[in-house]
Amino acid sequence: MAGYRADEGLAFMLRYENIAWYENGSVRILDRRCYPAETSFVTCSSHREVARAITDMVTQSAGPYTACGMGMALAAWECRELDPEGRKAYLRAAAGTLSNARPTTSGRMGTICRFCLETAEKAIDRGETGIDTVIRDKVVAMNNERYDRFYSIARHLVEKIPDGGHVLTQCFGETVVGMMLKVCREQGKNISLYCCETRPYFQGSRLTATVCSQMGFDTTVITDNMVGYVMENIGIDVFTCASDVITCDGHVVNKVGTMQIAVLAKRFGVPVYVTGEPDTGHPDRASVTIEMRDGASVLSAMGRPTAAEGVRGIYPAFDITPPELVTGIVTEDGIYRPQDLASFLERRKGIEEVAI
Amino acid sequence: MAGYRADEGLAFMLRYENIAWYENGSVRILDRRCYPAETSFVTCSSHREVARAITDMVTQSAGPYTACGMGMALAAWECRELDPEGRKAYLRAAAGTLSNARPTTSGRMGTICRFCLETAEKAIDRGETGIDTVIRDKVVAMNNERYDRFYSIARHLVEKIPDGGHVLTQCFGETVVGMMLKVCREQGKNISLYCCETRPYFQGSRLTATVCSQMGFDTTVITDNMVGYVMENIGIDVFTCASDVITCDGHVVNKVGTMQIAVLAKRFGVPVYVTGEPDTGHPDRASVTIEMRDGASVLSAMGRPTAAEGVRGIYPAFDITPPELVTGIVTEDGIYRPQDLASFLERRKGIEEVAI
Repeated sequence: MAGYRADEGLAFMLRYENIAWYENGSVRILDRRCYPAETSFVTCSSHREVARAITDMVTQSAGPYTACGMGMALAAWECRELDPEGRKAYLRAAAGTLSNARPTTSGRMGTICRFCLETAEKAIDRGETGIDTVIRDKVVAMNNERYDRFYSIARHLVEKIPDGGHVLTQCFGETVVGMMLKVCREQGKNISLYCCETRPYFQGSRLTATVCSQMGFDTTVITDNMVGYVMENIGIDVFTCASDVITCDGHVVNKVGTMQIAVLAKRFGVPVYVTGEPDTGHPDRASVTIEMRDGASVLSAMGRPTAAEGVRGIYPAFDITPPELVTGIVTEDGIYRPQDLASFLERRKGIEEVAI
Repeated sequence: MAGYRADEGLAFMLRYENIAWYENGSVRILDRRCYPAETSFVTCSSHREVARAITDMVTQSAGPYTACGMGMALAAWECRELDPEGRKAYLRAAAGTLSNARPTTSGRMGTICRFCLETAEKAIDRGETGIDTVIRDKVVAMNNERYDRFYSIARHLVEKIPDGGHVLTQCFGETVVGMMLKVCREQGKNISLYCCETRPYFQGSRLTATVCSQMGFDTTVITDNMVGYVMENIGIDVFTCASDVITCDGHVVNKVGTMQIAVLAKRFGVPVYVTGEPDTGHPDRASVTIEMRDGASVLSAMGRPTAAEGVRGIYPAFDITPPELVTGIVTEDGIYRPQDLASFLERRKGIEEVAI
């Protein structure tokens, strides 16, 4: 496919084809559950199989957003023989199935499926054929938008990283990590990455470190209990992570472990930069409920049991970092103090009002 | 074997027979590398095989101390047909082999082997036979002494734990953990344990949690990135750990991760109690060199790779917790402020002078 592609120059698993890709009646999805030990793809021949793959965590982080869109392209292929109204009805049903494949990401997946549906309906009304590729083009365009936004965020973030600096990461900041390194490369900044492995699923060692290393940067994995040691003895210039939610009063909800890294960062004088933007649906800390996942995840590692029968595990998926431990929230509009997100929201509101 | 046994009532892996045990011409050692997923023993039919098992990390923590002593008993069996001088020479050589099976614990293993050797030499001079069981009895007596010492330490520690309290552990405090629970049981104190899994070798989830659960206490494993979450949201009454070295000026050298837990403990108001006593060979922090082990350990979990080719790992085995983060050093003589270890050393010196 021709045209602008914002994923150029990024690591293997951040390229659109390797996240989830529709082509000729099937969608293939990189199986992130075993990557990078194995590079294998799950091939789906119906949108229901795509929904199932999303439910089964074949892909994660931002992966489901691409996968559900590609699932819509596949649904269009499945119903290609129906009349226009039949195709619209089929696609509406598919959008419902795909949006709800995983509860925690259903909001944004719903938005993406709706955009795909609207694009398809217009094309059907115009009597177009090849609705599957029309939808795939739409998904690529949405990915480009998202990647471009991360590129803007990354440019602000990289200003805070000195040449030769040591950057500590937590979990898998997905696209923003790739974009941070792309910007560093463009600016000739050579940085070293220290990636917390991020138990229990090792997103840091399996995904973040792989992306960093493939993009040509010096990459070291540390276990989650070495953060203090590394800050004190090796030296970290910037700690950065993404966020699941940022409340309007500046609390950061992110993968469990983020808060304790921020506490250590304060002790050792390391600045903490969090990428993302405040969520108007979450005014304050009290509006956040921490999801407790299956504690059994903590009692094994890479599929092998680590504990005896009768021992319990707990798995709070996230923790909450208070604003006083965060140096800056890095948005596409620039960096804001977490105590000062009202000004970001005011500015954003102004832009939206002008747009209306 | 009859007589007093200080390991009574302790968990399976703290019983002398299940650490390392000599009987009828062989020594069997619990393989801690796969425990508790598998309960299997390595059987050695020569003291050289015992030394090899120690080198290969079949047992760890205090396990090598029992294993090397039992290896001396086996050596006595091997040379039983020699004349007295021949037996003494054989045992001297065996003591050398066993003492040096692992560099980091060679000091204490050397002491144990020397005591076994002296006991054997005296028995040989008296014309005794069955030197193998004489040595085994000596090892049991030394184990009893060590366990009794830990029992005294545990009694001081348990004073600091409220009934119904939550106790956080790091790595595997070996005997002191078992003794802490034995004392709690004797006093009718019901406590809950939170065990950090302690990457990269999972001593916390595999060993500490197993001991706690087997002794009938409520036991929860957490990954090393959940410490802050648990302190803030569940509440911890006491954090306790053992020590590899305590310097005379109150710095604690222990399994990597200890220092960052102590930083978090300070933020969340959790007292930190470290068991052990100051080492006159280490006057201050500057006298400590942190051992850097093979970084490859960090790139896998339970034997399975977690990271891609080209990614580096680092493995500082220990870190150093400064005295201002430690509430108390728990010795068999009582609890000392880490800034006040000089008084412990004075007192100890006084006792030794009286003893001389």
